[in-house]
Amino acid sequence: MSSLKNSFKIAVLPGDGIGREVMPACLEVIDAAVKVAGAPPMSFETHQAGAQFYAESGEALPASALEACRKADAILFGAMGWPDIRFPDGTEIIPQLDLRMEFGLFAGVRPIRWFPGLPKVLSDPRAEGIDFVLIREQTEGLFYARGRGEIRDDQEAYDTMQITRAGTERVTEFAFQIAAQRKRRGRPGVVTCVDKANVFSSMAFFRKIFDEVAEKHPDVQKDYAYVDALALNMVKKPWALDVLVTENMFGDILSDLAAGLIGGMGMAASADIGEHYGLFQPAHGTAPDIAGKGVANPSAMILSGAMMLDWLAVKHREPKLADAARLIEAAVEHTLSTKTAVPMEYGGGANCADMTRSVIGALGAVR
Amino acid sequence: MSSLKNSFKIAVLPGDGIGREVMPACLEVIDAAVKVAGAPPMSFETHQAGAQFYAESGEALPASALEACRKADAILFGAMGWPDIRFPDGTEIIPQLDLRMEFGLFAGVRPIRWFPGLPKVLSDPRAEGIDFVLIREQTEGLFYARGRGEIRDDQEAYDTMQITRAGTERVTEFAFQIAAQRKRRGRPGVVTCVDKANVFSSMAFFRKIFDEVAEKHPDVQKDYAYVDALALNMVKKPWALDVLVTENMFGDILSDLAAGLIGGMGMAASADIGEHYGLFQPAHGTAPDIAGKGVANPSAMILSGAMMLDWLAVKHREPKLADAARLIEAAVEHTLSTKTAVPMEYGGGANCADMTRSVIGALGAVR
Ligand SMILES: CC(C)[C@H](C(=O)O)[C@@H](O)C(=O)O
Ligand SMILES: CC(C)[C@H](C(=O)O)[C@@H](O)C(=O)O
Repeated sequence: MSSLKNSFKIAVLPGDGIGREVMPACLEVIDAAVKVAGAPPMSFETHQAGAQFYAESGEALPASALEACRKADAILFGAMGWPDIRFPDGTEIIPQLDLRMEFGLFAGVRPIRWFPGLPKVLSDPRAEGIDFVLIREQTEGLFYARGRGEIRDDQEAYDTMQITRAGTERVTEFAFQIAAQRKRRGRPGVVTCVDKANVFSSMAFFRKIFDEVAEKHPDVQKDYAYVDALALNMVKKPWALDVLVTENMFGDILSDLAAGLIGGMGMAASADIGEHYGLFQPAHGTAPDIAGKGVANPSAMILSGAMMLDWLAVKHREPKLADAARLIEAAVEHTLSTKTAVPMEYGGGANCADMTRSVIGALGAVR
Repeated sequence: MSSLKNSFKIAVLPGDGIGREVMPACLEVIDAAVKVAGAPPMSFETHQAGAQFYAESGEALPASALEACRKADAILFGAMGWPDIRFPDGTEIIPQLDLRMEFGLFAGVRPIRWFPGLPKVLSDPRAEGIDFVLIREQTEGLFYARGRGEIRDDQEAYDTMQITRAGTERVTEFAFQIAAQRKRRGRPGVVTCVDKANVFSSMAFFRKIFDEVAEKHPDVQKDYAYVDALALNMVKKPWALDVLVTENMFGDILSDLAAGLIGGMGMAASADIGEHYGLFQPAHGTAPDIAGKGVANPSAMILSGAMMLDWLAVKHREPKLADAARLIEAAVEHTLSTKTAVPMEYGGGANCADMTRSVIGALGAVR
């Protein structure tokens, strides 16, 4: 049943700002980890895209890069966007949204887990048990309005949120599958539908479809929360959360909030998953304030790389790739918990290269 | 310049669940505080409304109650809504939204301040300096969609967000005025526009109007934040925030999150302010799980009462009402910081009556 593939082709889009710094770190770590795990190697093909490339070339996301992404086994994405570089109509250059639509990357997967070495943001000791996954719908919801907004006579502006049956079915189904897998890891699976069904009919529709999908997963528990109450609960008792599934805009807000609980964007790995494609990127931006100094914390990018290996492992039935993913996670944890390298954002002196070296060094130790 | 009014008529809507428990506590405290401050007395007129009244009478918000609210100097509102009591079409009974529309209560004011005696939710000691105000637009935004949603063939659902020039002008103007007042209290005034202007044209429109209004307030600083980044910052460094102004739905989410930082809904006072009317209510709900037991923490309701006195003081030029408001705040702080009474939600044994007695007892001590 093992994969017949003996190498994987990865389209690499470092993008702008610190995306260009954390990406090489991630590639190095992946290379080292697959070697240690005895997994098939990755071949990386880097493509230019983003705001700075737009300024040079007039294209933010060139067709050749899109084509390469389409042909690759997976996509690694750094960060894109830059202050003052905008399209002629004044809108920002954020190709990540185009890629989600282009490749149907309907599930934004944001794992939120605390481990030793991370800042203790909440004072309650139970916060050490934070371990949940937020699934953000990424192809519709309020983001359906992007490019469709209407402004009337400089007096009124309208944006429309769309919830479809198909879009909600696939993302809630995805969430139940994640919960079922987590259950296998020894925790009870609970999927919470996060909505505002008490006010909006589209959200009541979202919840109705969630219920229909839940019917097919009697092994997984279901729960509901209004998005405002959930935001409060994320601060009050995030350790009680397991799997959350929610609309695009709500997910955008809640996933940043959630990242704040485990030490901010420097740790926020994420995966954008579709039927056929997977794109892996840190949830942070290009950080113009620190870009170019080599001080960015590459952990979120590196952990996003581990998520890619996990996804490839399942898709291509290659358990050794999952081994490599576990090694990477353990090496990041080891680095932070032993304080071998402490990122600057947590008050340490480790820059991007120090962090990378330390994580690679730890791969052997954690094996 | 002092008010000619020698008494104020307050329409009181206790509503459902713990609304009916915390409201009498609030009225008692207000009565005592205006006496101590030598301010004109309040005459309270209680009206039935809400889900339980709907179940008995078929009306959630009777015309007579609305009429009384219209004639009163201010409205005190407990909490409304009850599980399983719904309108025939299945929607929840939430008259608070109708009241906001009916009375044009465009500014939802949610003060967030930590003081000794409140739980330390965040571990950073700077969290003791949390002191900001969130202004939520309350008559349009995504809530414009309420009752207007469209569902097509059980396949697609649409809800539309509306941002108007007039609606945005009045709420941002309100926020700048609040910031200017706070500056007088010795802090630099900064208003942060919280939006998602990078993706939605309605939100870019919101920001544009914010900028226009800011021009008229050169004494107050302005700032911008995307709502996702702001959610993260609320957890990372809420002590840096001053005045936030945002769209209805974003404000709903962020104000609950903010309440979580200072000990939850038990402390979350709020005011719904319009051109002519003011409604004051705790941000918490009816709490069916503890309703009827007399154990609810009345602090949020009591502090909302203090916000009412402050509003009346300005409107009717009666500084003694502001004195009464200060007394109430100080008495609540005194109760919590000296632990004279510790609400059950913070691990103490004080029920609603104990808290009320203690706050009233403290009014003399803090004078
Ligand atoms: C860059 C921005 C448009 C994007 C979003 O809002 O989706 C980002 O915040 C994210 O979470 O990926
Ligand atoms: C009861 C509910 C509809 C309401 C809202 O969403 O506005 C509440 O959450 C609030 O914040 O006042």
